[in-house]
Amino acid sequence: MEAEIISVGTELLLGQIANTNAQYLGEQLAALGIELHHIVTVGDNKERLKTALEVAWKRADVIILTGGLGPTQDDITKEAVAEFLSLELILDSSSLKTIRCFFSRRGHHMTDNNIKQALLPKGGLALPNPNGTAPGVWLERQGRVVGILPGPPFELQPMFENHVLPRLTAFLGEKQTIIKSRILKLYGIGESQAEEQVKDLVGSTNPTLASYAKPTEIQFRLTAKAFSQAEADNLLQSLENKLYARLGPYIFARDEDTMQAVLGRLLSQHSLSLALAESCTGGLAANWLTDVPGSSVYFQGGVISYSNELKTGLLQVPTELLHRHGAVSCEVAIAMAHGIRRLAQADIGAAVTGIAGPGGGSSEKPVGLVYVAVADNADTRYRRYQWSGARKIIKQRAAQALLNLIRERLLEPNI
Amino acid sequence: MEAEIISVGTELLLGQIANTNAQYLGEQLAALGIELHHIVTVGDNKERLKTALEVAWKRADVIILTGGLGPTQDDITKEAVAEFLSLELILDSSSLKTIRCFFSRRGHHMTDNNIKQALLPKGGLALPNPNGTAPGVWLERQGRVVGILPGPPFELQPMFENHVLPRLTAFLGEKQTIIKSRILKLYGIGESQAEEQVKDLVGSTNPTLASYAKPTEIQFRLTAKAFSQAEADNLLQSLENKLYARLGPYIFARDEDTMQAVLGRLLSQHSLSLALAESCTGGLAANWLTDVPGSSVYFQGGVISYSNELKTGLLQVPTELLHRHGAVSCEVAIAMAHGIRRLAQADIGAAVTGIAGPGGGSSEKPVGLVYVAVADNADTRYRRYQWSGARKIIKQRAAQALLNLIRERLLEPNI
Repeated sequence: MEAEIISVGTELLLGQIANTNAQYLGEQLAALGIELHHIVTVGDNKERLKTALEVAWKRADVIILTGGLGPTQDDITKEAVAEFLSLELILDSSSLKTIRCFFSRRGHHMTDNNIKQALLPKGGLALPNPNGTAPGVWLERQGRVVGILPGPPFELQPMFENHVLPRLTAFLGEKQTIIKSRILKLYGIGESQAEEQVKDLVGSTNPTLASYAKPTEIQFRLTAKAFSQAEADNLLQSLENKLYARLGPYIFARDEDTMQAVLGRLLSQHSLSLALAESCTGGLAANWLTDVPGSSVYFQGGVISYSNELKTGLLQVPTELLHRHGAVSCEVAIAMAHGIRRLAQADIGAAVTGIAGPGGGSSEKPVGLVYVAVADNADTRYRRYQWSGARKIIKQRAAQALLNLIRERLLEPNI
Repeated sequence: MEAEIISVGTELLLGQIANTNAQYLGEQLAALGIELHHIVTVGDNKERLKTALEVAWKRADVIILTGGLGPTQDDITKEAVAEFLSLELILDSSSLKTIRCFFSRRGHHMTDNNIKQALLPKGGLALPNPNGTAPGVWLERQGRVVGILPGPPFELQPMFENHVLPRLTAFLGEKQTIIKSRILKLYGIGESQAEEQVKDLVGSTNPTLASYAKPTEIQFRLTAKAFSQAEADNLLQSLENKLYARLGPYIFARDEDTMQAVLGRLLSQHSLSLALAESCTGGLAANWLTDVPGSSVYFQGGVISYSNELKTGLLQVPTELLHRHGAVSCEVAIAMAHGIRRLAQADIGAAVTGIAGPGGGSSEKPVGLVYVAVADNADTRYRRYQWSGARKIIKQRAAQALLNLIRERLLEPNI
């Protein structure tokens, strides 16, 4: 089973955006065990797209096209596919209804050019797009599959997962080698230090083990190749067990799981509520926490105390502490944690203060110095970090350090 | 002058990395006025690479290959080029010397497989690589140029700039067109509605105009082709003027500029301070604001009032308002804006309340319903939105709507 991706969009050729859709789809196809031999990018040009389709038709069983589904004249993907396969474009009334709803829900008027988005090559199936107006298309012809998806990644990804993936799996049938991956996420250890612990495992061919350093975590990717899900799962589980034996205390999440989701489950299990006081992270930690659906059950909210007035007035950090130790100090971090806990009447109060840069640093307190603190009814603790990097990276590292400190506290027996 | 990029590497097909080299080269070629019509990615497979070369040879004057220059057996780019052009591979002794030095400087011993990296297709010129062991290749044949560069971006980019760029410029000769782009960012109008206003301009060929819908804004990209920077700037400026005449009120930023940076400049100009009360966005708006370096000058901070207790206790939203209208209502949004303004002693208080989903909606107040409000000493206003989409998308749209409402207020004469 061979696949080809055709990415459509002049913005890709001009280098205005990176082709992250091809990366995402490459990963998804690999996981299905479908071999991807070519990724071809063409601009918003119907003739060149038709030529690319002709070539792909000769060598691939699965052709996935991305982009060029917008309402405008230079969006030509469906037209090119229809012309190449000599299919009429017909109006899909159900898609049109969905597009009309999309606009009326926003209180906008649908203009005529959006009608174009409801056109489908005859015989094609419309794939719903909850995040935009362009439906996708699934089309089977001459033993081949053509999938057409819109360009914006936030539209494409859920559509691939909910509508293309199950259809592809069915199309592949039973006798298929599969590739399964698992990701383990680590916090509190460096990449090379972590790899040193497992260097005998890094060379193995099935399952394979590879590490990636992200700004806020280290990821280990375990990948197994097998003839069945069960066999792949066994291979992965046995490698995962070895990793847990050596690096267990650092592993905080698997696969799509995140620090904030883990934290949310721990808070729910203990029926504890949390409130945050953020200085240098400016709301990022709370933003991550509230990305988790249902987080309002355990997250009370917080204060972003960018100004010293909010630190003293609202969080009741003693002015004297600020004067003696400065806003970026363990004393102030702890006082902020106590302050937000009291203010929000939460079981746990946590706080972060630091210097995100690029300005505001000194030789004594350089850019990247961050304190995080956690307080509950039995315990108060803090941790000091010193990072380098750009402002946004330091904000991310600080937010993750804060969430991790809370997680560690929640794992203790006396919580 | 037409170019084609051939990216070589199985890791690209497996989605293990994004093809950022193609993006980088696309941008560079566009700046040189060289039209890039195809980007083709193939794996570490000599036959498929030779086929890709054959196709590119027919349609492109400039072919740039990236990747596959390593010391291992699966690195086949130079071999494929040499075979395709029927050229011998010969040892370049100067490159070999450089590679030996590279190893000895690091105290490593050069293994025999690295000798392979000093092989060049006959007639080719070695391009030095200060950051790695693989030299690049520049080759002119039959009026065409073939450039071969290593895959790691930190090796490729300086090699392109120092060795390929000057040679390409010379190859292009004097009569050189350049391509320049400009991006205008719009808020408060849909993509199709915006395009309806400028549909007579969308068809033009120089400068071209294309639109893109992002979750939080619409982007118009203007691209001009000219023989000089000044001519390109003139073309862009005249199109930009037309767009401002028709869509001016919706345009909030250009190029790399962002809503939060624009807002920051407006606040600084007026010497006004801002504080936020966020409910459904959970800190995202404050996080964006504080991504701007120096934002502590005008941003006081805020409250994330996820719980009703923080709304009533801290922001002093009257309990009666919450009971009568519910937390997601214009009344509560306005009360939150007044509350945070008072609490933080800020010139401007702004607030957002809504239902980010996926739970918590009702037929009367569905998921995606959001109110934003802004209060200052002369004026109070709110706006109601109804969106659809995933939780994170709704959070993003709500945060952007909040920042935009503040921006609109700051543009008025009586601020």
